[in-house]
Amino acid sequence: MPDFKSIGEFGFIDHIATHPTPKHVLCGIGDDCAVMAQSNTQVRLVTTDMMVEGIHFFTHTPPEGLGHKLLAVNLSDIAAMGGTPTDAVISLAVPINHDVGYLERLYNGLYACADRFGVAIVGGDTTRSNNQLVLNITLTGHMDLAHVCYRSGAQPGDLIYVSGTLGDATGGLSLIRDKVEMNQTHRTHLLRKFHRPEPRLELGQTLSKTGAITAMMDISDGVASDLRHICQRSSVSATLQASTIPLSEASLRFCEKTKKDAIQLALSGGEDYELLFTIKPDRAKEIENLVQKSDHPQITCIGQITNGSGDISITYKEGSLSPLKFTGYDHFRTNA
Amino acid sequence: MPDFKSIGEFGFIDHIATHPTPKHVLCGIGDDCAVMAQSNTQVRLVTTDMMVEGIHFFTHTPPEGLGHKLLAVNLSDIAAMGGTPTDAVISLAVPINHDVGYLERLYNGLYACADRFGVAIVGGDTTRSNNQLVLNITLTGHMDLAHVCYRSGAQPGDLIYVSGTLGDATGGLSLIRDKVEMNQTHRTHLLRKFHRPEPRLELGQTLSKTGAITAMMDISDGVASDLRHICQRSSVSATLQASTIPLSEASLRFCEKTKKDAIQLALSGGEDYELLFTIKPDRAKEIENLVQKSDHPQITCIGQITNGSGDISITYKEGSLSPLKFTGYDHFRTNA
Repeated sequence: MPDFKSIGEFGFIDHIATHPTPKHVLCGIGDDCAVMAQSNTQVRLVTTDMMVEGIHFFTHTPPEGLGHKLLAVNLSDIAAMGGTPTDAVISLAVPINHDVGYLERLYNGLYACADRFGVAIVGGDTTRSNNQLVLNITLTGHMDLAHVCYRSGAQPGDLIYVSGTLGDATGGLSLIRDKVEMNQTHRTHLLRKFHRPEPRLELGQTLSKTGAITAMMDISDGVASDLRHICQRSSVSATLQASTIPLSEASLRFCEKTKKDAIQLALSGGEDYELLFTIKPDRAKEIENLVQKSDHPQITCIGQITNGSGDISITYKEGSLSPLKFTGYDHFRTNA
Repeated sequence: MPDFKSIGEFGFIDHIATHPTPKHVLCGIGDDCAVMAQSNTQVRLVTTDMMVEGIHFFTHTPPEGLGHKLLAVNLSDIAAMGGTPTDAVISLAVPINHDVGYLERLYNGLYACADRFGVAIVGGDTTRSNNQLVLNITLTGHMDLAHVCYRSGAQPGDLIYVSGTLGDATGGLSLIRDKVEMNQTHRTHLLRKFHRPEPRLELGQTLSKTGAITAMMDISDGVASDLRHICQRSSVSATLQASTIPLSEASLRFCEKTKKDAIQLALSGGEDYELLFTIKPDRAKEIENLVQKSDHPQITCIGQITNGSGDISITYKEGSLSPLKFTGYDHFRTNA
């Protein structure tokens, strides 16, 4: 039998996703949330995430930020369907001599985020671990059946959009790992994007209600990798215009200093938790105006869906069209 | 700040349970499931459990049984409210070189149990762990608002019942740990009760619909310890008659061989996953008859709720009344 290193996370998920599910499960494994029919007009959304010390966070990770992030990245999954979060349960496996103060601070961050987004923490499980702290969250939400945005509806001709700016979270992570001299404003921006991702719940809800969004997901593994999921689920290909990818001033300055390519950082950097979505071309301007008039973060068109079967090409300034090689982040393969 | 060893699991839970929850949460931390209003007549139930290699299971644990148990113990929580399970999400943290075949077998056990009880596995998270395999399940169910059985409704005079026989799972665990010569039928019975607990879903549903059950929970930490939770949540005390505690033939033979006290094993042994519940005294005979006529496991009256504030006394054959000293299983304290 193979080990995880050889088949990878997605190989294993493909393997277990073949088991049949009953009719009330509208979408099981393979989207940002599972979607279950609740009534003729309403669905329930469920998403879950496990975070392991030494893999997703470290003993020096600020616990309030960790508590925030545990919830925020799952709120981002609810946002990616266009839904409204309701409640969550939290499991903890804790080494026996672990400092309770650290966990209280973690819960402070978690509760602050929960209160802000109207989420009730309704229970959980607390148990022992031999050495690593392990956290798990399961978040439930709901929405109108008619407005659910899956990954699978993108059509050739649809325009590809992202919210906010990309690559900032990876910049923030680099700032923690390596010593980089930067002005305080830019430094704070990048670190905040890494430690305190902002779930795009209101934007997701606004977009889903227009009926013009053909596919949507959140960007957790880098836009290039995540767009591949939309293309595969929708049986289409995509072309991205590198020059249109939205970059923050902070990311540009960071890349100048570190001689990194800001576009590459934006394409392949994980944990931005912005929304990636496709719009019917005849409704794109209307949606742009709708978003601009409200308090939502900016949205930017970065490319177009084409005929094909999951290929992603990138046009750089020079006009060259190059197939994308980056395959995205896989916990079991990238670090193998 | 204290560590987990000094405040224990329940100390930590008490600490975090003080955060206020919104009105749609009918019951948060502190019962077998969280209970959320879904409509004027229906509620949603949620329960979650984390299992850690080296704590809850070991590399030699049969994976099919582990998959079964992960789901079954959560089905038992739904049973303890009187509800019907619907769907679950599973998180895995897997060491990078872990054998995928082991996990496939784990999923086989999980799916077999899920299919049997009509549960859809609708998604999950698969990620890396440094050394231990960690599993988490979150199970959702539903039921009529009018029939929910909480831990908190026991009244002085109510009769205390349990389903099945008690102490068998602990016997099974001992059989794995120590070499005990026993006949094959008894051996199989005890091992099965430990490895393959049977959630009492139909019994829970039958009981809850009678409207005569004032409090209910499942027995995971030993009946003495679990009854304390009912007494504390209901602000009552309880008296148990030791001689009435239901014991299996297998458990009696096991205790003979190992010179253990079968009653003590039944009182303090964990993981039986039988139901513990209280019945209004004037309806007890009717409920006994109802259960006996159906295909449900036996139910046995083992004591009575009394006035008081959480004390549990046990009457032994000799007629002596002794306050119970055992405080139940706490992952952080018992092994400390």
